[in-house]
Amino acid sequence: MSEHNAIDDLSHHRKFKRRPMQVTDAQELAVSYAATGLTEHIRLQESDGRVLAADMIAPHPFPAFARSGMDGYAIRSADTSRCELGETVWLKVVDEIPCGYVSSIPIESGTASRIMTGAQVPEGADAVVMLEATEIRHEGSETMVGIKRPLAPGKNITPMGFELQEGDLILRKGTKIGPGEISVLATFGLHQVEVYRKPVVGIFSTGTELLDIESPLEPGKIRNSNTYMLASQIREAGGVPVIMEAIPDRIELAKQRVEEALAEYDLVVTTGGVSVGDYDIMGELVTSGSMEMLFNKVTMRPGSVTTAAVKDGKLLFALSGNPGACYVGFLLFVRPAIRKMLGMEQFYLKEWTAELGADYAKVNNFTRFVRGRLEVQGGKLIATPALLDESSVMITIKDSDCLIVIPPELKGAAKGQAVQVLVLPGAWT
Amino acid sequence: MSEHNAIDDLSHHRKFKRRPMQVTDAQELAVSYAATGLTEHIRLQESDGRVLAADMIAPHPFPAFARSGMDGYAIRSADTSRCELGETVWLKVVDEIPCGYVSSIPIESGTASRIMTGAQVPEGADAVVMLEATEIRHEGSETMVGIKRPLAPGKNITPMGFELQEGDLILRKGTKIGPGEISVLATFGLHQVEVYRKPVVGIFSTGTELLDIESPLEPGKIRNSNTYMLASQIREAGGVPVIMEAIPDRIELAKQRVEEALAEYDLVVTTGGVSVGDYDIMGELVTSGSMEMLFNKVTMRPGSVTTAAVKDGKLLFALSGNPGACYVGFLLFVRPAIRKMLGMEQFYLKEWTAELGADYAKVNNFTRFVRGRLEVQGGKLIATPALLDESSVMITIKDSDCLIVIPPELKGAAKGQAVQVLVLPGAWT
Repeated sequence: MSEHNAIDDLSHHRKFKRRPMQVTDAQELAVSYAATGLTEHIRLQESDGRVLAADMIAPHPFPAFARSGMDGYAIRSADTSRCELGETVWLKVVDEIPCGYVSSIPIESGTASRIMTGAQVPEGADAVVMLEATEIRHEGSETMVGIKRPLAPGKNITPMGFELQEGDLILRKGTKIGPGEISVLATFGLHQVEVYRKPVVGIFSTGTELLDIESPLEPGKIRNSNTYMLASQIREAGGVPVIMEAIPDRIELAKQRVEEALAEYDLVVTTGGVSVGDYDIMGELVTSGSMEMLFNKVTMRPGSVTTAAVKDGKLLFALSGNPGACYVGFLLFVRPAIRKMLGMEQFYLKEWTAELGADYAKVNNFTRFVRGRLEVQGGKLIATPALLDESSVMITIKDSDCLIVIPPELKGAAKGQAVQVLVLPGAWT
Repeated sequence: MSEHNAIDDLSHHRKFKRRPMQVTDAQELAVSYAATGLTEHIRLQESDGRVLAADMIAPHPFPAFARSGMDGYAIRSADTSRCELGETVWLKVVDEIPCGYVSSIPIESGTASRIMTGAQVPEGADAVVMLEATEIRHEGSETMVGIKRPLAPGKNITPMGFELQEGDLILRKGTKIGPGEISVLATFGLHQVEVYRKPVVGIFSTGTELLDIESPLEPGKIRNSNTYMLASQIREAGGVPVIMEAIPDRIELAKQRVEEALAEYDLVVTTGGVSVGDYDIMGELVTSGSMEMLFNKVTMRPGSVTTAAVKDGKLLFALSGNPGACYVGFLLFVRPAIRKMLGMEQFYLKEWTAELGADYAKVNNFTRFVRGRLEVQGGKLIATPALLDESSVMITIKDSDCLIVIPPELKGAAKGQAVQVLVLPGAWT
């Protein structure tokens, strides 16, 4: 056996003998290095999709006053007790209260004030009778309102503080802002919000042979699609993608470029260069001693070669170059890290139990994350695997609502069986 | 009865006697006026969330060549038949094929070429043996690869056109672009895409008494929150919100402002001013003859006063000023219109059957759209109504995943009962 041969064997040994880590262990380990970053104050109008960096506390009760829930008349409910005898009670209309107006005329027995939905209920009144249940009579310069049915105290009035009291927690730190959050923040006049800065994520592809998406196809070559897919995934996760030039094939230069990116950005993601082949530069880079490798094999398909490392507290994720594996690797590892950096409490994909909609024959020694469709039939959640789910297949990524989790114990899975599913961002919308 | 009185009655009559339209009829009627607009060409990198305005056709097969699915050796499978006898077959390594490289050396019987995952399989080879299943021997300057097990033809090779053939439909017109779509478009070098322009939606609040969100609270007043909620909802739906000044109280001025907005923008949404009260300017405006009213009452709660009109082909939606009703009205009417204008095929909210997670006692003569939480328990979809779902309540909007549909026939609904639910945008993500 030649010396050359011995090195070959050693090299093979090192590459093949990666010690695989369980998926959840690997997720927890990687995510443990993700920490929330700096915050900034932005206008509420520009806060869509951002994540609160501080608890939001109600500065006043809401509603801030007893509010009419109807267009009608503010009255004293006791005045309507005679209606029980079939009698129409006539009350003198003493004021008209549009929204935003505070009446200076208290309601006394025998009087009523015309009031609009949303207006402040005048002093003395304890109920609002809806306009449709009234009739009007004019007596000289006076207007009388007739009521035919008795009203209970509090009817059609929303009490002050019905939704929130002063000092109540409106929204927790870590909440993602959407229409409902904007609505409630606007209501309290919280027009500036403190949010976490979006993590900036550098993306490298490996393989200088990849064609740019604007280039014509060449024999044997493929276009660089993962980079753009990752950029889109990073945006969805709440980060800002920065597309870098492809990582050079030479290890020293590659190391330098990745280290520069780790110094400059909050997180670095690479695609390709992590399998057992000779040109798998990322595999070499993370074991070269310049950074701490967290794992370089995970008990999952696709994406078993998913690799993570840390340098100076910054995470590097080296994902597979296979589109399906890259996609899944991002969702399982990178998205949770970004979401944790954004202060979100729920950083993993939502997990539910569903019924398998079709047989899934593939058996594996690793847990399989199968792209699938998520539907409801007769109130039951049904997850149906995509027809093509190989790690190299890209065409079914776009049609998936979920990842179906097929653990190795299952030895494949039969239609009707209960399976865990991870809901993909944007499913059903 | 005075003359004044007679007018009052007539006015009451007109306002109270709105003829309600069924929700689905109203949806279909309004949406029938929404049409796709102009298109524009944008860079794929900036196409996240946009909607394709043209079918996308595969310009070449994908994969464009027979592709190795493994790091290993490209061989002729027939050469491995002797392995069945437990014999190691030794093949002479004639080339090394990294990704992006086309080998000029065809594989003949007795030879093999080292090949990387994703590289083009050389002529003559019909299988790839994975690296881990091989051993290496050097004979002088020659490298021999040893294989111990037989391989079937086609093993570890993805044939040309496995995912898509040239001319196949990649993505339909009307598809919303996300990571999976970007991935496949990038693969085919479709770096420019034709998308629909985002509809520009003017938003008016009514009620000059509303406080700006930056203003301190004043007695009896509330802040303008619906405007900002609607802006957020419009963005989610795919439109561009333009926040206008509040509509003035005077009908002629209001009419002018709304007509100007309808001329300038693709769609106009207002909030408030549609109930039966005296200050309900939008109700007056849509019946004033300057536009065609489609409906001004819908058999739903909240939001029964939801109003729609058309002028010169442009839609005006006048939503309730109640936050809950405004939110629901947007989702049921405005969002579908925006999505149809964007060319989307699925413009309504996804509808599923779920099991009711708690009793819902309210009875109504109209269909109720109850905010709720959507969860899965034991594979079944469970929808639980929010504790506060009054139309005026805003606090539960942010915590909802779905709208639970409670038709009037139900007379309330019991826990465990099957109900229809509409999934809200962003649920579970």
